[in-house]
Amino acid sequence: MAKKLADPQVAEALAALPDWTVEQGKLHRDYRFADFIHAFGFMATAAIYIQAKDHHPEWSNVWNRVTVDLTTHDAGGITGKDVDLALFLEKVAKRLL
Amino acid sequence: MAKKLADPQVAEALAALPDWTVEQGKLHRDYRFADFIHAFGFMATAAIYIQAKDHHPEWSNVWNRVTVDLTTHDAGGITGKDVDLALFLEKVAKRLL
Amino acid sequence: MAKKLADPQVAEALAALPDWTVEQGKLHRDYRFADFIHAFGFMATAAIYIQAKDHHPEWSNVWNRVTVDLTTHDAGGITGKDVDLALFLEKVAKRLL
Amino acid sequence: MAKKLADPQVAEALAALPDWTVEQGKLHRDYRFADFIHAFGFMATAAIYIQAKDHHPEWSNVWNRVTVDLTTHDAGGITGKDVDLALFLEKVAKRLL
Repeated sequence: MAKKLADPQVAEALAALPDWTVEQGKLHRDYRFADFIHAFGFMATAAIYIQAKDHHPEWSNVWNRVTVDLTTHDAGGITGKDVDLALFLEKVAKRLL
Repeated sequence: MAKKLADPQVAEALAALPDWTVEQGKLHRDYRFADFIHAFGFMATAAIYIQAKDHHPEWSNVWNRVTVDLTTHDAGGITGKDVDLALFLEKVAKRLL
Repeated sequence: MAKKLADPQVAEALAALPDWTVEQGKLHRDYRFADFIHAFGFMATAAIYIQAKDHHPEWSNVWNRVTVDLTTHDAGGITGKDVDLALFLEKVAKRLL
Repeated sequence: MAKKLADPQVAEALAALPDWTVEQGKLHRDYRFADFIHAFGFMATAAIYIQAKDHHPEWSNVWNRVTVDLTTHDAGGITGKDVDLALFLEKVAKRLL
């Protein structure tokens, strides 16, 4: 089972995720794409990965914006699974932003 | 341009949308699907319709849940466009729920 | 590794898949949905499942039609993985057809 | 209504679409992505645009490959709608390839 990361580990992860912050104990990012097509295209691409990893985000969309919050409920906080998902989302988003 | 509906018009619309409420001036519904596959499948199906209508929801997803809020910013409230979108979402969701 | 099914096993599988046939050694079905929204919604829903199972179809789409062919390349024919995928596709398609 | 392009017009369009050919009277391209996630992410992104334009491709997918054929049935051949769709697909695909 994934273990909750200690604060220094979260800080280290954030160093590799410059556009992410921690908000209310969750890895957080707001994406702003060119339009709905690219915003939802990002979500649809990520959805396929997400289910395969069986680790799901909290995310919301309004037109060109996608807001993501990542935490691992079973571990009561941010785990390596959240960091891995954030890194994947960055990779895909960078292509579609 | 779509016009903001008066309260009796909204009430009439809600009569055809029994699982929807008005929250903070928006048409609101929480969907709970069997799993992420069906929840996101619902969103992906709806996304194709949404862009064609050029009227976009505020919606969020966590695993099997999809929360939808509908309003028309230009009109400052709920319009016929929101009612039409809610009716379409119901039709698709009923198939995937 | 999945093993190629013998002909009687394929026949048994087809008994549970009345709308499927075997064409050129692959499990085959043509779906016809109401429109592109439902056809692609079916594909998007299935795509999430497919990646999680790491077993991918050959499929094509033109407007409201989706054609599916299933085989397992490593096994040189139809395996239980193809039957499982066909059963899943039927379940989702029946909701969206 | 979109009009069938004359051969010199098709040739001109192909000059802006270096990876496309004409096969059996249709604009044709094979894409090869890194994996299924990117291949289907491309299709899901494009699907949202496609429905909004109400002009649909013939396309097929096997794991990381997407094959596209474009023609306009009503016009009996390649039209400006096909060229526009090819240009859009190129733009999205270049990001996800």
